[in-house]
Amino acid sequence: MAGRIDAKLRKLDIDLPTPMAPIANYVPATITGTLVVISGQLPAIDGKVAFTGKVPTNLTIEQGAAATRQSFINVLVHLKAACNGDLDRVKRVVRLGGFVACPPDFTQHATVMNGASDLAVAIFGEAGRHARTTIGVPSLPLDAAVEVEGMFEIG
Amino acid sequence: MAGRIDAKLRKLDIDLPTPMAPIANYVPATITGTLVVISGQLPAIDGKVAFTGKVPTNLTIEQGAAATRQSFINVLVHLKAACNGDLDRVKRVVRLGGFVACPPDFTQHATVMNGASDLAVAIFGEAGRHARTTIGVPSLPLDAAVEVEGMFEIG
Amino acid sequence: MAGRIDAKLRKLDIDLPTPMAPIANYVPATITGTLVVISGQLPAIDGKVAFTGKVPTNLTIEQGAAATRQSFINVLVHLKAACNGDLDRVKRVVRLGGFVACPPDFTQHATVMNGASDLAVAIFGEAGRHARTTIGVPSLPLDAAVEVEGMFEIG
Repeated sequence: MAGRIDAKLRKLDIDLPTPMAPIANYVPATITGTLVVISGQLPAIDGKVAFTGKVPTNLTIEQGAAATRQSFINVLVHLKAACNGDLDRVKRVVRLGGFVACPPDFTQHATVMNGASDLAVAIFGEAGRHARTTIGVPSLPLDAAVEVEGMFEIG
Repeated sequence: MAGRIDAKLRKLDIDLPTPMAPIANYVPATITGTLVVISGQLPAIDGKVAFTGKVPTNLTIEQGAAATRQSFINVLVHLKAACNGDLDRVKRVVRLGGFVACPPDFTQHATVMNGASDLAVAIFGEAGRHARTTIGVPSLPLDAAVEVEGMFEIG
Repeated sequence: MAGRIDAKLRKLDIDLPTPMAPIANYVPATITGTLVVISGQLPAIDGKVAFTGKVPTNLTIEQGAAATRQSFINVLVHLKAACNGDLDRVKRVVRLGGFVACPPDFTQHATVMNGASDLAVAIFGEAGRHARTTIGVPSLPLDAAVEVEGMFEIG
């Protein structure tokens, strides 16, 4: 049963890149007791923000969902490092926070955030079902379209 | 002493509805150790968002406070379910997060969020006094005027 | 070694004022287990918000960073009170949340939030390296330019 979650990632064709080194006085993950707290992740690919602008002005809702999915992949990268490489230690996705850059008249934040939530459940199954808060924001670092943070229980 | 909090709710004329089934790959509440994390709740009544638009453009500050109060009632619905129906198990309201849909020149977010905070203390007494973060947002899911999330310690 | 963090604060010429009494039905800090949760702090000095308006419209990015630094000092004030005056009990800065009041085209939120993060590491060293989420917001309570919240592990 070892590598159960790694096998699931392979099945989903998701390749977790090596985490980038921290570029400021904060870190991508902290551990306190059995909780892992992951810093807000942008939808970056190969170290570059891949989804910029506002939803739905510059990106469709589907692209916004792809962006939260990518942000969650980056959450996983740092979660795996926090687990010393063993994602099977994850007991529960406790909470995801989702931030969507959008104008005042946008209403479909939940659909955008489903990109992250659906991937969490695809990977972790029942243990991937999480509490979640999704809100709109006027702007995010580096003009990112979305940002996703996470809290996890590990064993 | 059993049903102490239920008695308080009756005294305040607050009837907690049956929680709605989750409609996506996230859940209204997760438990990790002695912590319960409740997903961001909209000011819904009977499954429909009852307070929409921006404060103070479309709603008065008083209506905004009524909206955070309603969101907190929805937090309680899911907290009660997480406690297997026994709200007396709540040891502490640890944190509330409040989000107010408003324009850039709004300044009275705290008064809006007091609708939730005042109800927390009315119900839980000293144990209801919580840490809190309140911010403005351009928009929320389904055009909700406010959103409230919570973290609780249970025994 | 007693007063290690107090000595560091003196070296940095930071004088923690006496915390203000809570003005509403919430409190600046709650403790659950080994976690301390600090309410969102505005960049106030002597009980008055010292940095108002939007970044970069009304404040430079450097002023924004000074504002998050001031907010973090206010976080420390309440953290110290939660530790019964002994900041040496802080084992880890677990998470900081940073909120920057700004227009939709702002992109340098991270630089603004570094004012808080850099101070955390200057004071707590390696234990000060934290998980962090930084987002833009249209407005904050009392027209504050920034707001910072925190979660800490204490022993």
